[in-house]
Amino acid sequence: MVAKIPLITLLTDYGTRDHFVASMKGVIHSINPTANMIDISHEVAPQDIIEAAFLIRSCFSFFPPSTIHVIVVDPSVGSSRKPILVSTENHVFIAPDNGVLSLIYEVEPPSQVVEITAEHYMLPEVSKTFHGRDVFAPVAAWLSKGVDVLNFGEPLEQYVRLALPKSKTTADGQLKGIILHVDRFGNLISNISYEDFQTARENTPGDKFLVSIGNREIQGLKQFYSESQKGELLALFGSTKYLEIAQNQGSAAKTLGLNRGAEITVSLK
Amino acid sequence: MVAKIPLITLLTDYGTRDHFVASMKGVIHSINPTANMIDISHEVAPQDIIEAAFLIRSCFSFFPPSTIHVIVVDPSVGSSRKPILVSTENHVFIAPDNGVLSLIYEVEPPSQVVEITAEHYMLPEVSKTFHGRDVFAPVAAWLSKGVDVLNFGEPLEQYVRLALPKSKTTADGQLKGIILHVDRFGNLISNISYEDFQTARENTPGDKFLVSIGNREIQGLKQFYSESQKGELLALFGSTKYLEIAQNQGSAAKTLGLNRGAEITVSLK
Amino acid sequence: MVAKIPLITLLTDYGTRDHFVASMKGVIHSINPTANMIDISHEVAPQDIIEAAFLIRSCFSFFPPSTIHVIVVDPSVGSSRKPILVSTENHVFIAPDNGVLSLIYEVEPPSQVVEITAEHYMLPEVSKTFHGRDVFAPVAAWLSKGVDVLNFGEPLEQYVRLALPKSKTTADGQLKGIILHVDRFGNLISNISYEDFQTARENTPGDKFLVSIGNREIQGLKQFYSESQKGELLALFGSTKYLEIAQNQGSAAKTLGLNRGAEITVSLK
Repeated sequence: MVAKIPLITLLTDYGTRDHFVASMKGVIHSINPTANMIDISHEVAPQDIIEAAFLIRSCFSFFPPSTIHVIVVDPSVGSSRKPILVSTENHVFIAPDNGVLSLIYEVEPPSQVVEITAEHYMLPEVSKTFHGRDVFAPVAAWLSKGVDVLNFGEPLEQYVRLALPKSKTTADGQLKGIILHVDRFGNLISNISYEDFQTARENTPGDKFLVSIGNREIQGLKQFYSESQKGELLALFGSTKYLEIAQNQGSAAKTLGLNRGAEITVSLK
Repeated sequence: MVAKIPLITLLTDYGTRDHFVASMKGVIHSINPTANMIDISHEVAPQDIIEAAFLIRSCFSFFPPSTIHVIVVDPSVGSSRKPILVSTENHVFIAPDNGVLSLIYEVEPPSQVVEITAEHYMLPEVSKTFHGRDVFAPVAAWLSKGVDVLNFGEPLEQYVRLALPKSKTTADGQLKGIILHVDRFGNLISNISYEDFQTARENTPGDKFLVSIGNREIQGLKQFYSESQKGELLALFGSTKYLEIAQNQGSAAKTLGLNRGAEITVSLK
Repeated sequence: MVAKIPLITLLTDYGTRDHFVASMKGVIHSINPTANMIDISHEVAPQDIIEAAFLIRSCFSFFPPSTIHVIVVDPSVGSSRKPILVSTENHVFIAPDNGVLSLIYEVEPPSQVVEITAEHYMLPEVSKTFHGRDVFAPVAAWLSKGVDVLNFGEPLEQYVRLALPKSKTTADGQLKGIILHVDRFGNLISNISYEDFQTARENTPGDKFLVSIGNREIQGLKQFYSESQKGELLALFGSTKYLEIAQNQGSAAKTLGLNRGAEITVSLK
């Protein structure tokens, strides 16, 4: 199915200083000038598959059905890692098969995973170092023109799923997780989802909510940033429904000296 | 009135590393796929209302009539601060009511200010931390489809105007102002407008023009950057018609060690 | 000839923090709302003509015929340097006549070079400091509506070509070049093209390939980054077909402590 106005999103670690993203857009516009393109981010840390997985998971569902999401964080470009095309009920994803779609697989079960092999949908000359331009961009553009998913290659049974760290609940009423992402404001976003919390809450007597992170403790759950005093650390479930640690008008990451991977514990009793 | 090709501009402090801006764009495209979107900037310093006020003031008039400008610099998101919709003769602005439109009010008298309350024009689930995505983006998209301003809520009589510092002329022929913005090139842009200068000039005998800033003095008024020697500091009225201090092929801000808020004095006699 | 969906690309040193690029886009959309706009980069180092020349050279050919490329890196804005419009067989370029198109002239011989003088295609009030907004953007927009190149001014016989450093082959089978660009990943891209290498290879007995750069030597030619060990330095012909020095999952520029201008030698025998 082709969207009335086809939409392609782009998520890469290419940065915006070089010509990389523009080259991809030139290729897409050359093939399908009616396709709209929206940048998700190009500031993924170089080759950071987990950051890209987090970002696409955080926003894909706000795009309309039939959106084509192109994710190029590709440390093994040129090697035998496969380019894949994944369609789910509402979206299509194009990416290297390196696990960057692992968080998507959890929430949008793939209806079809195809290994992209059809060379006539790639640029005539495919470099060994820039598949974003030579493979992923043209495939996205042709797909946006209505070419069927199965025309790009054969279905793939085995594809890479990274075992990303999950939060867990301990017997003594503790939720234990780690920080998955630090955003622009220095908010520390954990892997403890609101659902995890609700389940743990139901199974734990009392109404305590005490966060331990770094060498600090934070009492209680807030709803928005300015609910606390200026400079105060607070815990809330943010817009992606994961527990995050923030500082009102400050950077929790800087204040706590913490980064991705830091441990976080919530004591519920 | 709906523009032939509706245009929505976006000005935020969200940065471009995270998924925030992309989520807003996904929401807008979902509601009105024919709307064009142009980024003004997403690099406003976190929660810096004055910088955002300066940026929208500097460029809004170069957009065509009926452009919808969305400004989200929102330190009090989730609290009782109001989301507002402001229409002027030629433009529409959507922002939190925190004064970020103060410089607009000076040059484009609002014909209508509305408090946005109509929940059916917001996302079904409105978070407490991301109104850019859940409130401002969908309202802009519906507005771009021709929904009337008054459908979004009731007119508002009282709204926030920040008293931004004005330049002043002293009895002894001095124009005193402060630096409002430092741009990418290190140019220091003051709040002394060309009109202020002209009025002071007419009221002051002689043709002296001596700028004092930091511990430096700059003689005379230039018209363009390369009119001075490489490395030389110069004063000119820039493209926004405010007095700015620049350095030919250098950064005046770095050379002078100055930033926003620095005092600047022009002696005219 | 007008493209079905006209496309304008933008390459500047304006950064994305200020309102500069947005003002240009507002002007373009005001004149031709159907024009698509694609950013090439706005992160060219301030006034770095050579970096801009490299970037436009690296990507222009991936855009469709009739694309209008606007390049504004303009240290002499306001002076007597000329705004020019250059048409080649497939593309149109608009830029200050300061040599920023020098690398284009090498690969796309201009069929027409015009000095832009027609004031009715500029903004009514042209500042001395922001020709991106007041001259280049409106000219691009009118051009995208089908106005003929010769309506913008008179043909120009003499225009600036920078003598950019070329690689050379020595009698004893060495290819000598310099680093032209350091990309986001820290890859060092030289001015030694694949053609230069092929010619030198044919004229040199043996199959040695030894790169000397900084105080390091690199043996052999690779095809893609992950062909080497993690952290290893490697040499390959990258996606723009110039010899580049990279580090697998690292930054060659940081590791070698080198930047643009560094010398590189390939010994072939």
